Amino acid sequence: MIQKNLDFVLSEKKKKIDKALTRVLTKKKGFNKPLYDAMLYSVSAGGKRLRPAIMLLVGGDLFNMDKHEGLMQTACSIEMIHTYSLIHDDLPSMDDDDFRRGLPTLHKKYDESVAILAGDALFSLAIETFAKAEGFKDKDKLKGLSFLLENVGTEGMVAGQYVDTKIDNYKRNSLVLKYIHLKKTAAMISASFALPALLSGAKNACFERLAKLGTSAGLLFQIADDIIDVTQSSEVLGKTAGKDLKQNKLTFVSLYGLEKAKRMAVKEAQTARRLSDEINFNTPYIPELIEYFHKRIK
Amino acid sequence: MIQKNLDFVLSEKKKKIDKALTRVLTKKKGFNKPLYDAMLYSVSAGGKRLRPAIMLLVGGDLFNMDKHEGLMQTACSIEMIHTYSLIHDDLPSMDDDDFRRGLPTLHKKYDESVAILAGDALFSLAIETFAKAEGFKDKDKLKGLSFLLENVGTEGMVAGQYVDTKIDNYKRNSLVLKYIHLKKTAAMISASFALPALLSGAKNACFERLAKLGTSAGLLFQIADDIIDVTQSSEVLGKTAGKDLKQNKLTFVSLYGLEKAKRMAVKEAQTARRLSDEINFNTPYIPELIEYFHKRIK
Repeated sequence: MIQKNLDFVLSEKKKKIDKALTRVLTKKKGFNKPLYDAMLYSVSAGGKRLRPAIMLLVGGDLFNMDKHEGLMQTACSIEMIHTYSLIHDDLPSMDDDDFRRGLPTLHKKYDESVAILAGDALFSLAIETFAKAEGFKDKDKLKGLSFLLENVGTEGMVAGQYVDTKIDNYKRNSLVLKYIHLKKTAAMISASFALPALLSGAKNACFERLAKLGTSAGLLFQIADDIIDVTQSSEVLGKTAGKDLKQNKLTFVSLYGLEKAKRMAVKEAQTARRLSDEINFNTPYIPELIEYFHKRIK
Repeated sequence: MIQKNLDFVLSEKKKKIDKALTRVLTKKKGFNKPLYDAMLYSVSAGGKRLRPAIMLLVGGDLFNMDKHEGLMQTACSIEMIHTYSLIHDDLPSMDDDDFRRGLPTLHKKYDESVAILAGDALFSLAIETFAKAEGFKDKDKLKGLSFLLENVGTEGMVAGQYVDTKIDNYKRNSLVLKYIHLKKTAAMISASFALPALLSGAKNACFERLAKLGTSAGLLFQIADDIIDVTQSSEVLGKTAGKDLKQNKLTFVSLYGLEKAKRMAVKEAQTARRLSDEINFNTPYIPELIEYFHKRIK
């Protein structure tokens, strides 16, 4: 019953996000139309829209932003950045993945040059969309933008991707593992939780609590990802299963083994639950989302 | 005599820009230090710093921003974006260039994954640096940021790179040629001219005039680039000469021939000169810079 409610809400959000993304990425003519087509191919290739949905859920629940056009625009930015990172991550010189969400990756559908440029273009359009989002104070928008970029760049997602890609140059220990997962996955999930607070000019304490919850939820999400990579089939995953092991990646499972990884997921879920209780959401969706993150491995 | 003055001013600006860039890109420790090292390698690999120098020259001349720390920060952003675009452009699946400014390109020095991620990271850090630049009104900074991204992304530089890379899918005519050169080169040079106006909240008419001058100067710069690609040696160019021809690129020379291309450069230089006269700069440097752009082909 509870799960059905969350499913319904997530699918409603997904529909709205998909519509907004398609609007941003549809170009009828112009020499650059094929570039937009490539961007839209990857953005439309499935995806649960978790990160933008988190932004909409938190913004609606805590800041009365349910019908805020600007929040939807910044949520689209987050999804475009997520897609850009997947496109570049899938490239042959990186993770070399032929499938993503059950469809050919962009460099397989087109070629590498298209994938590199479509990624670059999505990132640029994401930031442009954020910078032009409506209905926020300039000060709040700049704060949000700065925070977002801290989580995307050399101290965020890209840093995590770098260490993950060059793992052979690092010690395989818990410090490096946590660095990769915090930066590569948790940073953007944390940003999704905390951005609505920054954008609506909420107090620092509120922003920090949401960022912390997001980090914890993001780590939970990534531990679960590491686990299902070895326990589920390619069909269910929509991407090549067992890839982490084959690529000698440093994951919670490769470092700690399956059973300990599961126990760490339980612990991270408890932390996330506690933080979520402290925030005291008005609706049940965020707490339910944390349960959903955890349930993926069960 | 006049040329010596400009040389001196440009070399002074370059020193200051280099120092500021090194400060932004030097990281002493942390797992992401090698990523910063890679970014700094490409940013430090020569380069005349034309785009940031234009920003400093225009800002100093028209808006009294000679010692404006924020202007230097945004100028660094422009150079980081320029370097990011070169790194991705040089990749094997794109222009496949082994040398840039006489040094191995980043994917030759390290590998492709480092080049892709260092480019991504430079772009992100560039925008973050811009968003955090000091001493501007929030409103002006957001306007500047939006304008910059319009010139970088799907309607700017990346669009030009896309059509340039996929030229075999397009008709080889003047419309496509102008599209590529306007977007790929002129857009960022135009942004360098016009950003100081936006950032200091100048009137629209002033901003538009500077943007127009920048577009004209950028086209002149690119026509000259097309010409010296066939008339100068690899040693002088610091990159592989005759590359455009070999890669079947659409250039002013390949479409119109050398002599007509030279005449078009003369015409573009005249337009730029006229626009520069209209703006009525206080110092001789911008008019001299336009002469310098033109003299490259002589």
